[in-house]
Amino acid sequence: MKNVTVGIDIGGTNSVMGVVDRDGNILAENRISTTDYPEIKDYVAALHEAIQETLQKVTGEFEVKAIGIGAPNGNYYHGTIEDPPNLIWEGIIPLCDLMSKYYDIPVVLTNDANAAALGEMIYGGAKDMKHFIVYTLGTGLGSGIVINGEVLYGYTGFAGEIGHTTMVPGGRDCGCGRQGCLETYVSATGIVRTVEELFGLRRTPSPLRKVPSDKLTSKMITEAAQQGDPIALEAFDKTADMLALSIVNSVAFASPEAIFLFGGLSNAGKYLFEPTERYVNEKIQSIFKGTVKILHSLIPENNAAILGASALAWKELEKK
Amino acid sequence: MKNVTVGIDIGGTNSVMGVVDRDGNILAENRISTTDYPEIKDYVAALHEAIQETLQKVTGEFEVKAIGIGAPNGNYYHGTIEDPPNLIWEGIIPLCDLMSKYYDIPVVLTNDANAAALGEMIYGGAKDMKHFIVYTLGTGLGSGIVINGEVLYGYTGFAGEIGHTTMVPGGRDCGCGRQGCLETYVSATGIVRTVEELFGLRRTPSPLRKVPSDKLTSKMITEAAQQGDPIALEAFDKTADMLALSIVNSVAFASPEAIFLFGGLSNAGKYLFEPTERYVNEKIQSIFKGTVKILHSLIPENNAAILGASALAWKELEKK
Repeated sequence: MKNVTVGIDIGGTNSVMGVVDRDGNILAENRISTTDYPEIKDYVAALHEAIQETLQKVTGEFEVKAIGIGAPNGNYYHGTIEDPPNLIWEGIIPLCDLMSKYYDIPVVLTNDANAAALGEMIYGGAKDMKHFIVYTLGTGLGSGIVINGEVLYGYTGFAGEIGHTTMVPGGRDCGCGRQGCLETYVSATGIVRTVEELFGLRRTPSPLRKVPSDKLTSKMITEAAQQGDPIALEAFDKTADMLALSIVNSVAFASPEAIFLFGGLSNAGKYLFEPTERYVNEKIQSIFKGTVKILHSLIPENNAAILGASALAWKELEKK
Repeated sequence: MKNVTVGIDIGGTNSVMGVVDRDGNILAENRISTTDYPEIKDYVAALHEAIQETLQKVTGEFEVKAIGIGAPNGNYYHGTIEDPPNLIWEGIIPLCDLMSKYYDIPVVLTNDANAAALGEMIYGGAKDMKHFIVYTLGTGLGSGIVINGEVLYGYTGFAGEIGHTTMVPGGRDCGCGRQGCLETYVSATGIVRTVEELFGLRRTPSPLRKVPSDKLTSKMITEAAQQGDPIALEAFDKTADMLALSIVNSVAFASPEAIFLFGGLSNAGKYLFEPTERYVNEKIQSIFKGTVKILHSLIPENNAAILGASALAWKELEKK
């Protein structure tokens, strides 16, 4: 009999789920539309049905030990999703309670970036680490902080919002209503904004100038960098510089053993990863020199959401 | 039979010690010169002798359960003082090992700011808190971070260096060899530097302009503020603004229940504490609004060093 967990990632458009063994093998997968269910109870019923379907696809004998869920604004302490900006439900959604009507195994919930950190701890590069931080570079910037082998949730359950630390007082407008947050500089949308600023700052020609501002993507910027475009290269350099500044501050705060970078942007090794490492070495306080590794996440990006959520479930079982 | 601990604070000039009960009453005190003993072994022998002397002053029956030591660059994990900038000994000093030759009770060591956080937890305003941060505003800025009821030491033992987070890239030169660290703005020396900058920036007359730059103190600035001096008032406002920015970033990172402010500068309530509170409320991310209290430390400043060190000893005993 094989022990498995179910990992579910609730996204704005789709919810994906998978049955996962302790080694991180996804034995079966499924998905439902998140937006098809304006009523949360209907959504939970549909989720339950989809989970049952997924379980039927698994071959051999197995036992589901726990369910882990990653969701925006997921609160681990309360098992709730609280005022999620990108989901169709409003207010405080008691998701774990609702799920528990269908299951008498542990059902636990956290946000996507914390799930990413747990994925790294259970299946990835942080298996033997007690202190590390994962920066997830996507449309925005998420972070999961692990201290003494536990995800840092803090007093509220919402700790780990490094993407919303203020890097530039009075700087770029952020979706959170404030200004100068890290994620307005270091993310797929952040690097686009940096290129836009550089258009004004520099006179250098660039193929990116031919793209309408609202069509510009971080992928185009990576491609331009590969062609040696100076604007794109400078944008990556500025992004790395700002990311390194945040990392150095995180090290002063928490002194982790490693910082993991996860997500599309961080894979632009030569353009982002390497200069980030270099700037960290330049900027770091002397007592921390040589104590912290900058690492690529070992979790494959296409499965990260399911793996992270299932890792939360395994982690919960370890606590029992 | 009363249980007591001994708290020792090793300063650049003097080392103070006290015998302390579980309620934070200091039953006897003593001090030796730190600088009189260039050889660490002689220092430890003198410390031992002074402890014995102190214990003889305590009336009634008692038992010493543990010894706690606060020292600059104290490493809790290793019981060592590592490359202390303000002490006369160099390199890595295995203080707990040296002390253990005299005592077969636990001897534990940490830095001054972590000791302050433990003092707050054991005797002060954080008795029922699991997540809080103490900012100590002295000549520099120290911080002790408590997460899940434990001081955050991190991978190296040196976590909690909020005073050396970079607030202004390329900003004021810091004693750590870098630039723009929080403590160059928010500390007794930081506010002096702010006044000096304001001398250049403003044309406003100020009695502080009559003081030679190298004689200017934070105490003079507080007195000038009390007289309504606009330069002094603006300096406090800028200090509060920068402190609030750091607090808001610490909240995004760790989501504590409270931030405690400790030290001379923080007592300038009307000038520093109140505007800091106001700026925190203005700057904080909406999900953390109303979740974190800004509080005065409840540890009396003149006894804080001994109390913090003795609290470390009590905390260690709780772990057994």
